[in-house]
Amino acid sequence: MRPTTPNLSNPSPDALSQLGPRLLALTARADAALGRVLPSEQQPPLELHSAMRYAVLGGGKRLRPLLVYAAGHALGSDGAELDAPACAVELIHAYSLVHDDLPAMDDDALRRGRPTCHVVYGEAMAILAGDALQALAFEILAHDPHAGTEAARTLQMLRVLGRACGAEGMAGGQALDLAAVGRKLTLAELEHMHACKTGALIRTSVQLGALATGAGTAAVEALDRYAAAVGLAFQVRDDILDVEGESAVIGKTAGKDAAADKPTFPSIIGLEASRARLAELTATALQAIAAFGPGAGLLEELALYAAHRTH
Amino acid sequence: MRPTTPNLSNPSPDALSQLGPRLLALTARADAALGRVLPSEQQPPLELHSAMRYAVLGGGKRLRPLLVYAAGHALGSDGAELDAPACAVELIHAYSLVHDDLPAMDDDALRRGRPTCHVVYGEAMAILAGDALQALAFEILAHDPHAGTEAARTLQMLRVLGRACGAEGMAGGQALDLAAVGRKLTLAELEHMHACKTGALIRTSVQLGALATGAGTAAVEALDRYAAAVGLAFQVRDDILDVEGESAVIGKTAGKDAAADKPTFPSIIGLEASRARLAELTATALQAIAAFGPGAGLLEELALYAAHRTH
Repeated sequence: MRPTTPNLSNPSPDALSQLGPRLLALTARADAALGRVLPSEQQPPLELHSAMRYAVLGGGKRLRPLLVYAAGHALGSDGAELDAPACAVELIHAYSLVHDDLPAMDDDALRRGRPTCHVVYGEAMAILAGDALQALAFEILAHDPHAGTEAARTLQMLRVLGRACGAEGMAGGQALDLAAVGRKLTLAELEHMHACKTGALIRTSVQLGALATGAGTAAVEALDRYAAAVGLAFQVRDDILDVEGESAVIGKTAGKDAAADKPTFPSIIGLEASRARLAELTATALQAIAAFGPGAGLLEELALYAAHRTH
Repeated sequence: MRPTTPNLSNPSPDALSQLGPRLLALTARADAALGRVLPSEQQPPLELHSAMRYAVLGGGKRLRPLLVYAAGHALGSDGAELDAPACAVELIHAYSLVHDDLPAMDDDALRRGRPTCHVVYGEAMAILAGDALQALAFEILAHDPHAGTEAARTLQMLRVLGRACGAEGMAGGQALDLAAVGRKLTLAELEHMHACKTGALIRTSVQLGALATGAGTAAVEALDRYAAAVGLAFQVRDDILDVEGESAVIGKTAGKDAAADKPTFPSIIGLEASRARLAELTATALQAIAAFGPGAGLLEELALYAAHRTH
């Protein structure tokens, strides 16, 4: 491990709670790429295009695109072939937030510190914007100009993305989440729900980065162990922040989960055990990528960020 | 034109208002294929899987899968390579109906003679079922086992499908439709709205059938002229049925469009002119496929069905 790399045994919370300069530059790269693939607000249907851009270009963390880029980086690539998958996973993530925030779902009025999409554009337009963002994700991945010579691999990436979004992935996890409100879950049930609801797309982000780079099976499997642990760690941290955080800092309504009687890590195993689980998951993630050497520096930074972020 | 083929100058409305035996057999083939690609109700998440199957396997007309098969047939193919695109377009169509029927959208309680998905499963599950159906459509098209040797062509099919579903296609058309309520549209505006909202996916159905069969550009273009005309004809007939039909026959709430102050062909150009436009569109469709000879029999039958159906 390089001397400049922070590690868990000697954390520097302030440094770990925010992204370093290399990841910030990649966040900007993702934002720019998303701005290019989203339809223009100058062209009709104006309101739908505007709602789509509002839902995506609102200062999200870009964790999923960063995982695409970081996985590619661990395999020695920093090429343009990472941009289409990076955009695709973020479009899917953004659409899922728009639909999750709807009154019929989580009924949330605040997201990323701004009014949610349906508050600004109305429910019907928010449903349509989410639908169109999902379609756009598949379209741009299939359009990837770098896929020309590797069409079979791009098809594989589309299958991975499709599966992560569907009834066995994100949508299925959200269904489990809805069914869990007001019910006591076991820790295993809670972790399974998160593995579907957010874990599937996070693992897909790392997989797409690896596939776009032409990684072999062993590398993909190691990266997948990393991604499964980081995905869950991110969620444990989310639940801890919901207990500890303030709305102004975390950018959404604090204490919302408890108020809605939603099962969380702190509500099932307590705050201290949740912190211990978070540290354990982070260690698992770092161990999974140890063999990649210095190239895995961005993945390492993301794992530590997931565990230490304050919003 | 073969002597057995009914034509517009001498219509036999009873015969034309229903599908013939060959198309009925293909409807059954589509139903069976859909039953196979949809997730099992025996596996969790049970309610989501149940809602997805309810939304798709409820006796729809299967117009879009039939167009896939009929286009393939016109090009001399009846192979298994048509099943994945046939399922994909129907999954997209079914998801769009689930979302369109939501209270925030058209707020319809009856569809295909049964309670709509959100009436049975609740709004949140209906939103998720629609989302998961869209993902499944892309996943199965990318999974097509017949695509192995023709990955580049399958990618092209995925791009066509993605574009048809998104902001420049179906979702965009629905946005235009929402914006049109209570406003006077011109005939051109109404036709543009339908070209996006339903026309894009109908054209895509024919295109996917042609692409799966390996058709050349000239054939694809002729088939696209056919599909654009049939798609609009289908919608004109829908509007006429909304004025003329009874709920029990058409399987949804009759007079709904007028009650909702939605622009329709009869409300803009009158019932007689709507009938004339329907005949004109049907003639355009039949002319576009004349050069295909007897192989285009199924496409011909579908064009006549679109114009004469009673539900």
